[in-house]
Amino acid sequence: MTDKKLLSEHEVDLYNKWWHAANYLSIGQIYLMDNPLLREPLKLEHTKPRLLGHWGTTPGLNFIYLHLNRIIRERDNDILFIAGPGHGAPGVVASTYLEGTYTELFPEITQDEVGMQKLFKQFSFPGGIPSHTGAPTPGSIHEGGELGYSLSHAYGAIFDNPDLTVACVIGDGEAETGPLATSWHSNKFVNPKTDGAVLPILHLNGYKIANPTILARISHQELINLIKGYGYDPIFVEDNDPDSMHQKMASAMNTAFNRIHRIQQNARKNNDTGRPLWPAIIFKSPKGWTCPKTIDGEKVEDYWRAHQIPFGDLSNPKHLKLLEQWMKSYHPDALFDEKGAIFPEIAELAPKGDKRMSANPNGNGGLLRRPLKLPDYRQYAVKMTKHGHVIAESTRIMGEFLRDVIRNNPEKFLLLSPDENNSNRLNKVFEVTDRVWNAEIYDFDDHLAHKGQVMEILSEHTVEGWLEGYLLTGRHGLFSCYEAFIHIVDSMVNQFAKWLDEASKVEWRRPISSLNILLTSHVWRQDHNGFSHQDPGFIDHVVSKKPKMSRIYLPPDANTLLLVTSHCLKSSDRINVIVAGKQPEPQWLTMDEAIKHCYKGLGIWEWASNDKGTEPDVIVACAGDVPTLEALAATKILNEYVPDLKIRFINVVDLMTLMTDDQHPHGLSNQEFDALFTINKPVIFAYHGFPRLIHSLIYKRSNARNFHVHGFREEGTTTTPFDMVVLNNLDRYHLVSNIMNRVDRYKSKIAYIDQFVRDKLVEHELYIRQYGEDMPEIKNWRWK
Amino acid sequence: MTDKKLLSEHEVDLYNKWWHAANYLSIGQIYLMDNPLLREPLKLEHTKPRLLGHWGTTPGLNFIYLHLNRIIRERDNDILFIAGPGHGAPGVVASTYLEGTYTELFPEITQDEVGMQKLFKQFSFPGGIPSHTGAPTPGSIHEGGELGYSLSHAYGAIFDNPDLTVACVIGDGEAETGPLATSWHSNKFVNPKTDGAVLPILHLNGYKIANPTILARISHQELINLIKGYGYDPIFVEDNDPDSMHQKMASAMNTAFNRIHRIQQNARKNNDTGRPLWPAIIFKSPKGWTCPKTIDGEKVEDYWRAHQIPFGDLSNPKHLKLLEQWMKSYHPDALFDEKGAIFPEIAELAPKGDKRMSANPNGNGGLLRRPLKLPDYRQYAVKMTKHGHVIAESTRIMGEFLRDVIRNNPEKFLLLSPDENNSNRLNKVFEVTDRVWNAEIYDFDDHLAHKGQVMEILSEHTVEGWLEGYLLTGRHGLFSCYEAFIHIVDSMVNQFAKWLDEASKVEWRRPISSLNILLTSHVWRQDHNGFSHQDPGFIDHVVSKKPKMSRIYLPPDANTLLLVTSHCLKSSDRINVIVAGKQPEPQWLTMDEAIKHCYKGLGIWEWASNDKGTEPDVIVACAGDVPTLEALAATKILNEYVPDLKIRFINVVDLMTLMTDDQHPHGLSNQEFDALFTINKPVIFAYHGFPRLIHSLIYKRSNARNFHVHGFREEGTTTTPFDMVVLNNLDRYHLVSNIMNRVDRYKSKIAYIDQFVRDKLVEHELYIRQYGEDMPEIKNWRWK
Repeated sequence: MTDKKLLSEHEVDLYNKWWHAANYLSIGQIYLMDNPLLREPLKLEHTKPRLLGHWGTTPGLNFIYLHLNRIIRERDNDILFIAGPGHGAPGVVASTYLEGTYTELFPEITQDEVGMQKLFKQFSFPGGIPSHTGAPTPGSIHEGGELGYSLSHAYGAIFDNPDLTVACVIGDGEAETGPLATSWHSNKFVNPKTDGAVLPILHLNGYKIANPTILARISHQELINLIKGYGYDPIFVEDNDPDSMHQKMASAMNTAFNRIHRIQQNARKNNDTGRPLWPAIIFKSPKGWTCPKTIDGEKVEDYWRAHQIPFGDLSNPKHLKLLEQWMKSYHPDALFDEKGAIFPEIAELAPKGDKRMSANPNGNGGLLRRPLKLPDYRQYAVKMTKHGHVIAESTRIMGEFLRDVIRNNPEKFLLLSPDENNSNRLNKVFEVTDRVWNAEIYDFDDHLAHKGQVMEILSEHTVEGWLEGYLLTGRHGLFSCYEAFIHIVDSMVNQFAKWLDEASKVEWRRPISSLNILLTSHVWRQDHNGFSHQDPGFIDHVVSKKPKMSRIYLPPDANTLLLVTSHCLKSSDRINVIVAGKQPEPQWLTMDEAIKHCYKGLGIWEWASNDKGTEPDVIVACAGDVPTLEALAATKILNEYVPDLKIRFINVVDLMTLMTDDQHPHGLSNQEFDALFTINKPVIFAYHGFPRLIHSLIYKRSNARNFHVHGFREEGTTTTPFDMVVLNNLDRYHLVSNIMNRVDRYKSKIAYIDQFVRDKLVEHELYIRQYGEDMPEIKNWRWK
Repeated sequence: MTDKKLLSEHEVDLYNKWWHAANYLSIGQIYLMDNPLLREPLKLEHTKPRLLGHWGTTPGLNFIYLHLNRIIRERDNDILFIAGPGHGAPGVVASTYLEGTYTELFPEITQDEVGMQKLFKQFSFPGGIPSHTGAPTPGSIHEGGELGYSLSHAYGAIFDNPDLTVACVIGDGEAETGPLATSWHSNKFVNPKTDGAVLPILHLNGYKIANPTILARISHQELINLIKGYGYDPIFVEDNDPDSMHQKMASAMNTAFNRIHRIQQNARKNNDTGRPLWPAIIFKSPKGWTCPKTIDGEKVEDYWRAHQIPFGDLSNPKHLKLLEQWMKSYHPDALFDEKGAIFPEIAELAPKGDKRMSANPNGNGGLLRRPLKLPDYRQYAVKMTKHGHVIAESTRIMGEFLRDVIRNNPEKFLLLSPDENNSNRLNKVFEVTDRVWNAEIYDFDDHLAHKGQVMEILSEHTVEGWLEGYLLTGRHGLFSCYEAFIHIVDSMVNQFAKWLDEASKVEWRRPISSLNILLTSHVWRQDHNGFSHQDPGFIDHVVSKKPKMSRIYLPPDANTLLLVTSHCLKSSDRINVIVAGKQPEPQWLTMDEAIKHCYKGLGIWEWASNDKGTEPDVIVACAGDVPTLEALAATKILNEYVPDLKIRFINVVDLMTLMTDDQHPHGLSNQEFDALFTINKPVIFAYHGFPRLIHSLIYKRSNARNFHVHGFREEGTTTTPFDMVVLNNLDRYHLVSNIMNRVDRYKSKIAYIDQFVRDKLVEHELYIRQYGEDMPEIKNWRWK
């Protein structure tokens, strides 16, 4: 490899020039706000008051980027670049500026001294751009502010995307995170015929903020074992000398892309879709490569001191001089012409048009997004004549709808889950597809195949990362998860919400499909799995995100679930959380009623109310399938015992309607809200999650003080379904008691009712302790 | 290994009997509620109506457990057992019952037929015990309801615990999770001289709920590479035949424990504390081993169908018969005597007393916990004469206190962080300790050593898992983290809160040290790192946990932080979240004032108020260091422009005081609350996090409708510190405007004030866009 020189001296010289230009532009972004070409002596006022952005990883990123460009020019590949290392934007922005894309997308950042000054100044500057490769970065689908998700994003991008290769640079800091550590195994889910390829490039530069990295401090053999253990064939590229590194890197890239090509050719021509040994590059370069080796007598290059800003105090004239010398060591006059534009022979190292990684449409997936061909959800409707008499499992019905979504959209829809699609009763989908699996398959395996539209791995992080990558490259999907364990990806969803928000402000970014999350196996139906599986708090987490994107739906039955699902699959740029039951439950609304109800997001169920046209004594409200059932059961008891109690029954499907219209686009006006909930009547609200959330949504309403919310009070264990609601005072009996206690004119009956409630609860307790299941009157309860 | 028989036939026979007894007791727990010894023909009414618990992993766990017992008996080791696989409690409970511990701790579960019936019935039964090895399980420090944390818990337990070995069984499902995947690397942080040892036992039984596992479907060589890449020497144990497996397992255990012994001897005698090659066992047994091979013609043993309940419908007489036959295949009459007690020769396979893994005090760490020797926090006090004139970095002061905590408690206190201790300005600790690092160390490395009390790995999951394991075995610690990224462990903290809650209900469990989390580098001081680093939502997450454990402290300066830190380090069974600044900030309270203020949790700052003994016009409240500064700055402006406006200034350190006293133990009574916040005056509240939380805490208060909360509105980017508060309307100018708008008698001045505010904000905007930093009047602002 080192004997035969792959690149001519002229090429190496050119590559060095590109690299120097990228490095120069990176340092400029970090340090300067004026005098970008250093055509006058550098003064303190040319520099930024606050120095931000990480130099450490940048020269390596620039080096990798330019060598990927060589591959694209030579092979005409479609490649997307993911920068895993944090604060790596100076490098990526520099490269995209050299490619011209930056100027095309941000015309004020011109290819001259004025533009360069703006490019420099805007970086990590108020009103400018952040130091991560966030949404404003051309070609980026991965901000990487929080570390750990680069590789799962990369794989998400290449599923069902056979022409795309994602070159994913993984920082050795990021490699220590859990989500990254397991995402290497994504290669067991790649079909080399119908999927694209990921080339992981582990950037081993040795240091995090203040510590060395683990992977840089284990033996070479251990590292080889690890990468091979993850199922990759590692190609090592290591040197300090740039010229030699260019040769090695060019050779490594050739090896890697040749192998990818051979794998794909073999799969596509010979229909051999088995798991191949994919290449991975281990790129070991000094941290902060080419910055001063020592500063003030202290080691900087190839050390953690080069991780962020190699030196900061520019009011020290020695440092200012050092900065000038360092930047001039790249010979800017040999890189940029009189006007400040890159010399054409260097610029020509960039690929052309959409082949530039910064202009590849996969990096702005909304451009590629085509709506799903959705079947008419109404045809899956549960038929019924009376409210609450048909029993059905809502998610099983949803599974029929999803089956046909999958059938209609074979290359652009994924149903993902951490091993729970069956448990969540979406099995119908297996009538038309399989689970993707490219590790070993035995003949007795159940619906495993090299190709399919269901993906399952026991890692919520990987599932979420795959889906985000898939959505960001223009496709569609749905993540089904146990409600409690979706908290595992709280932070990822947080970061994705921030990406969506930022992207919505970038003019050239196009909307992408929403992140759809189905939470079945929810808190009330984890009675069998115990306390660890019982938590409704993800709703609260999503509500804290921007109103323009956060949506929470709590369909109480199958027909409302069908409509909500269809709605979510059509939407874009949202985080849709759907909480729905998987257990056999009474069905409430005909499809026509469901449509009317969901269209408003909440509403009075006249058939469960007896306030007909008059002022009610009390409002019984509910959100969620189990609370709806309990609220109806309470209503039925009251109808029987105190038939003259006027109850208005309200069900909420779209939780955001509770907010005011100036807080959330789905929020009701105060007038609408007061018309439903009155301004002074007690509202007993049976809610799926933590009660505090409801109070925080309605605190501005006139009637806020009269809201009494029953929900999850963090009481759980392994018990019966009904006992779960009893433990949390969400059951029909506690609701009845509370309702009665809120209506003044029933003061005389309260003692009687409370005794009835106590008796019922004791009876329940004794029964379940003896028989281990709920009383028949609970299990077989029906609405009238 | 297979030629020379390690165990005699008699031993194998005895081991099989123990194993059969454990398996029998496991199946009994899953299926039966009566007729435990099957001394009458099995009838449907003897079985449970709902069958829960996972059989699949259980026989393997039982097998491993008994072989660990052999090691303990032969070598007198201290070993703790961690069951990673989900729903593995039937096996562990069975083993601890056989050891006698279960009966000692739960005297009603006697060693006879009556006790066995109770043991069976209680499992996954209302009022009974869950199917995970939660807090009620003797010897357990790891519930494992949510998967991924077994190995980091194991390592946490053995740090500074040289005599302990944790045998950590990792399910191959769990092995797919990110947190588990990276926690293998914990071996780079073990000092073989001063720490104990972890023996990972990867239980490769092939299936998750509905899918095979990845690690069971890669090649043998890939698996070897992976384990070696993680830095372990794998020992494979694989067979279907129990007799042969006993021989192999005994041999593997000998090999593993010999190696651990040699490593520790070498380290301890020769002071060789370098990283050795620790052993790991790969235990490959059929899923659901020894259950019926096929049921109704379908493959069950060694297949995913054996993962949970091998067969469920017992109303089918064939299934009922099959269950009886299956249980009888273990020959219960040869295992249990007439009364139902295990025969003595089998029982003797258990170690004695505290050597039983179920009775090891490390499994009930509160027994071992000794209070920290805490220095007097008052000696670190920032001295001041006037409020707000001394500038200090709060966490740097805290670092001095922590330095001495470390010095005083060399073997029982850890300071953990994902590579952020320096960034969080706790550097002073390095005067007395180092960062633990047992991968390669170079001579230029900074405070890395084989021994130390600071632990850093770029994995919030691993940090949290280590700390939990450390606390659960009776020690103390503090986790410092960027506020935004603590969301990464939302779900872990959730699970830990559930553990604490469950443990508090188990009579024999003793309190453990609190989980202390320091969030500096918080939302307002991540102006430089950008939007991805800006999120205060973890507070909301912790508030949703049980009031008895959730504590949120927002000390506004160094002296309050010192006191709060000292308080938290003394506490037990809490989740203490401390949010504090790391940037240079004005200091407000003398230590005496700080003590008085923190003792109440909130209070009026008289020196910032001008309502002296009269009714105020308005209450300016604040919580958090940055909001406090802005609230004071707003107050100062108002004092100047409208000197007759009577302001009461309230600072809140302990957020939970805002709740009512029936909601939270720290909650103020309504009387106390009203005395501070009045019942009708406007309250302008400058809060650190999401405003909705404050509304949800105070919704029951008389004055709730007059609370106007300014906080994080999910607006962020890379900008200046002051611009961060401006973007979110939390700055002094927006506060001034809001305050003025709430006081009726200043209607005439509103236009003037609002113009002043607009001018100030425009001036600010223009300045930062030009200079990239805050105006001098902001940076150098002082309180009077």
